[in-house]
This record gives sequence, structure tokens and C-alpha cells, in this order.
Amino acid sequence: MTTVLDVARRAGVSSATVSRVLSGKGNVGEEARRRVLDAVRELDFQPNRMAQGLRRGRGNAVGLLVGDIEQNVYSALTKHVQTALGEIGLDLMLYNLDHSAERLRTMLEAAPAMGLRGVALATTDIIPMATIGPLLRGLQAGGMSVVSIGQRLHKDGIPSIVYEERAAARRAVAYLLEGGRSPVAYLGRLTGSAVGTDRYRGYAAAVTGAGQALRRELVWDVAYRFAAGYEATSRALDAGLDFRAIQCGSDELALGALAAIRDRGRAVPDDIAVIGFGNLDWGGHVRPALTTLSVHPATVAGHMARMLAGDETKLLTVIPRTLVRRGSA
Amino acid sequence: MTTVLDVARRAGVSSATVSRVLSGKGNVGEEARRRVLDAVRELDFQPNRMAQGLRRGRGNAVGLLVGDIEQNVYSALTKHVQTALGEIGLDLMLYNLDHSAERLRTMLEAAPAMGLRGVALATTDIIPMATIGPLLRGLQAGGMSVVSIGQRLHKDGIPSIVYEERAAARRAVAYLLEGGRSPVAYLGRLTGSAVGTDRYRGYAAAVTGAGQALRRELVWDVAYRFAAGYEATSRALDAGLDFRAIQCGSDELALGALAAIRDRGRAVPDDIAVIGFGNLDWGGHVRPALTTLSVHPATVAGHMARMLAGDETKLLTVIPRTLVRRGSA
Repeated sequence: MTTVLDVARRAGVSSATVSRVLSGKGNVGEEARRRVLDAVRELDFQPNRMAQGLRRGRGNAVGLLVGDIEQNVYSALTKHVQTALGEIGLDLMLYNLDHSAERLRTMLEAAPAMGLRGVALATTDIIPMATIGPLLRGLQAGGMSVVSIGQRLHKDGIPSIVYEERAAARRAVAYLLEGGRSPVAYLGRLTGSAVGTDRYRGYAAAVTGAGQALRRELVWDVAYRFAAGYEATSRALDAGLDFRAIQCGSDELALGALAAIRDRGRAVPDDIAVIGFGNLDWGGHVRPALTTLSVHPATVAGHMARMLAGDETKLLTVIPRTLVRRGSA
Repeated sequence: MTTVLDVARRAGVSSATVSRVLSGKGNVGEEARRRVLDAVRELDFQPNRMAQGLRRGRGNAVGLLVGDIEQNVYSALTKHVQTALGEIGLDLMLYNLDHSAERLRTMLEAAPAMGLRGVALATTDIIPMATIGPLLRGLQAGGMSVVSIGQRLHKDGIPSIVYEERAAARRAVAYLLEGGRSPVAYLGRLTGSAVGTDRYRGYAAAVTGAGQALRRELVWDVAYRFAAGYEATSRALDAGLDFRAIQCGSDELALGALAAIRDRGRAVPDDIAVIGFGNLDWGGHVRPALTTLSVHPATVAGHMARMLAGDETKLLTVIPRTLVRRGSA
């Protein structure tokens, strides 16, 4: 089905311009208007009832669907998304997915009736595109903007704003190895996590790139939780495994690892260095302060808002991460 | 102006029952229906356009206005509020106030046009009731449920769900004093913070209750931020002030204090004990683990949802806190 985005692409204008032409609201130059109307005719674009509803001004809210609002990475994102949306006159409707694909499906099915302007999907849980893909494409076909934050769905036609994950993890682990901290263990969610898998691949690339073998017993696939980090690290230490550093898939896991190492009388970073992922707000205030990889929620939110406003149309936007060096590595 | 709540009170039923009678939707017993209609007549209740909009089924969203979504206390609350609202078929519209009274005013002014079912206000910043009070009462008059979370506005007719603050702080400080940790300093926001002032009063009551004088140089009025806790504690230590414990107004401040104490070569809790406030998620995983006062977001969210559904009508609900004892005190 032809969408506003298709019309915008054909006409070489933003989707906001297409909306302005179709609604008769706002100023659009004569040349742009002509191109939009030509594209509408050429593509036989039929705005459906949903899109008409939006153009009657019902859609001032954007639905933000987050994996787990209690995790700081999502609450920081939410704060900046609200600020960025507010600047273009839009409200934020928040949905907490709580890592449930069922909640995601239910919410996407309800979205058209809610008159949302757009939907931003921010979760690291792997999205079952066989069932969710048609829903997302249905929303797009209805004229709704759909954006993925943190997960690459661009191959399914969903504009995606993602962080550098694999390359960032690879640089961090290379930094550990170059500092003589070998072997390096990996602590993080792999099963079911899109970005977790990417981060692990960066770790694996750094290890093999340094001419070392990957050792299965040094890869700990656990949930992104403090307690999981504590338990996995405790088990490894109690089993007498030899490792000089841990690259973690999240700061929560890293804090759990720090506690486990300290509780067993070992020193960070002298005995074991630890690097987190995500630069959460408390990381600079624990001791030793946590070395981690940066996040940039304001940058992500800015891209998202420009996409919703039709001023950005890239299908894939990658935000770089930097290593934030503190005491733990 | 007469509200749905007035009608519900007069009729001795919930506001949800009043709504069902007026909308003709849902089952209501004949006796309850008669009492509602009698109350409507006796009070000359005139539902306004807003209320009619709600009864046409537009209002399925509740606006949650939080002080700062990036702070874990608010993101945990948001998570549980969404779950509780979802259970009664309502959506969550989130507003981040970012500690701005201006944003609060703007949002409340916009609320009627958004067709919200209700508004829950969750901030510890003192609300300027001279300007905000009329807005809140206007929303109530329009048939909207308004609930305050964490701040006592019941004297202004706003149903309030609050934590025990003063009594909780008093018990925590008494615990420190009884353990021989005297003198105790207080680190927390007083200026502009309703609950901060309450917590400080609990501290003051415990100190004077133990027959000690309040010492101005041991009360540090700072923002609820990690860095503020670090700096205030560092200044006190560098100035050679004598104190054996710190009661903090938040866990963030407590973590800053822990770092400052450690960076100066002092031990927690042997040299200086530290108690936080709020039981944030990382507190059990820092070392020493943080002793703090509990929060109960699921309980708060449950009360809020029942108030919005008209099943609870108490003007003031106080949730007790307990001392969560860990390593830091």
C-alpha cells in the first residue's frame, strides 16, 4: 500500500510537507504543492480513514514503546524524547513493554484507534517480525510514522536509529587486551537480545583479532540485571576460572560484577578490570568508578523527532559510542 | 461547581457508578441508579462539555506528571502506574515536568482539550497552589479525576497518596543515635521540596528528641543529585567537621556521600554511617550496600488506579516506609 512516505519520496519533499498539502493547513510553496499532487496521482495514493483522522488534527501524540521504563537507559531516553517532541508540539504516550512481545502486539493493534501521530519502538528484545512486521507496515500504510530506536529494522522498511554496538564493544575489549588484561570474559544477554548479540560479536572479534581462542566458559549469557551479574561473576570466581577482565553488556551487570569481585576479596582493576555498557547515571559515583561505553539519548531523540516531522528520511542512522574511562578499567 | 465526585458522595456510590448511570453504559442496579439521579437533581449537577466528551468514551488516557522521569523513583512509579492502569483498561500519557512549575501549568491548561480521564501529579517540588490550585479544581469541576502522589494536597481537596516521610526519617535517625553514631548530619533538599522539608523535620525531631542541639553546620541543603551529595560531604570532611553518620534525603545523595567518604580514606560504616532514602535499584549492589528507607510503587499505583476508577475516595492515604538495613549503617 502506498504511504505518505512513498508520496514524499516520489515528490522529493518531507512527509510533513505532504501532510500540509493534503490537509490544506500550513504554507507550502507552489512548486512543492504541484510535485506532491503529481506524486499522489502517479502513485494512486488513497489516504485511508486513519490518515484522514490524523489530518483532521487528532494525532498530536506519539506512542513511545520502551522495553522496561525502570531501566535508566529507557527513562533517560524517555526524558529526552519528551523534550524533543514538546519542541515540535507533540505529546508523548508511553507504553512499557516489560519485555513482552504479547504487550507489543496488543499495543500495535490498538494504535490506529488511538489516533497516534507515530510510534517509536525502543526495545533491545528481538522483535518477532513474522507477526509484528505486518502490524508495523499496516501502521505505516495508515499514514503513521514508525521509528525503531536501538534495533535495526531498516531492512523491513522501518527507519531505525541505532547505536554502534559491535564496533564499540570491539574497541573496548581491544583496549583491555592491549592493556595486558587477558583473558577477558563476556557477561551479558545473548539469547533473545538483538543488541546483546551485537555486543558479544564485538567482543568475539576483538578476542580472535588478538589471536586468542574464544573460550565458552568465559561467556556468561544472563539477563540484564544486577543480581544476574553478581551471581555469574561469583560462580566464575568460586569455580577458580582464570580471567583478568570482564566486558559487560550493561552497567547493571557491571555493578553486580564489581560487588562479586569485592565480596571475594579481589581488587578492581588490579586483579580484574571491568567495563560496563551504557553510562548510567550512578556509574561515575560508585567506587571504583565504572569505565563504560557512552549513550546519547538527546541525539537519538533529536533524530526521532526530525523523522516524525518528516525532516529526516534516512532508513538507518548509527550513533557512535565512545569509551568513558574511569577507575574500573 | 458540582462534580461527579460530589454526586457520587451524595448518592453513596463510586464515581464510576455515576459515570455509568450518566452514560447509559454498563450495568447499574436500579437502587443505585435512582440514588444517582436523585443526587444529580438535588445538586443541580450540569455535566460540562468535557465531561460529556469523557462519557462519549474519549477519555481512555490518564496523564501522569512526574518531577523527573530519569530519577529511578519516578521511573519505577511510572512502570507500576502503567501496569495498574492497564488492568482497568486505561492508557498512560506521560509528562516529564523536569522540576518546572511552568511546564506543570502549561500541561494542566492543555489537559481539558486532550480528553484525559484523569491526571496524577507526582512531584516532590512544592506546588504553587495560588496559581496551580485553580487549574486543578477546574479539572475536577470538569469531571476529571485528579490525584496527588507524594505530596499532601488533600487540604486543597486533591486526593493525595503520600509516603510516611517525617516519621520514617525520625525512626532512621533514632536508629543511628541509639547505635552511638552521634552527631548525625543531614544531607538533602529542603528549599522548594515538600517531602524534603518533611524528611528534615523527622531528622530534627530525632536529634532534639535525643536531647541534642540542632547544629546548623551539619544540615546540608542541596539538590537531589549524586554530585551534590559528593561535594557537600567532601566540603564537610575537608573542613574537619565532626559527624559520625549522615541521614540523606535520597539514595543519589547517599551514593555521592559514600564516594566522598571513601575518596578521603574514611570507612563506611565504621567511621561514618550513611542512610539513604528511597531504596533505588542499585542500592543493594554498591559496596557497602546502602541502608535506606523503602518505597512501594506498586502499592501507590494500586491506590491511584482505584481512585481513578472511583472505588476509593479517601482524601489522604499514607503509605508506611520501613528501614532496609544493609551494610552502610
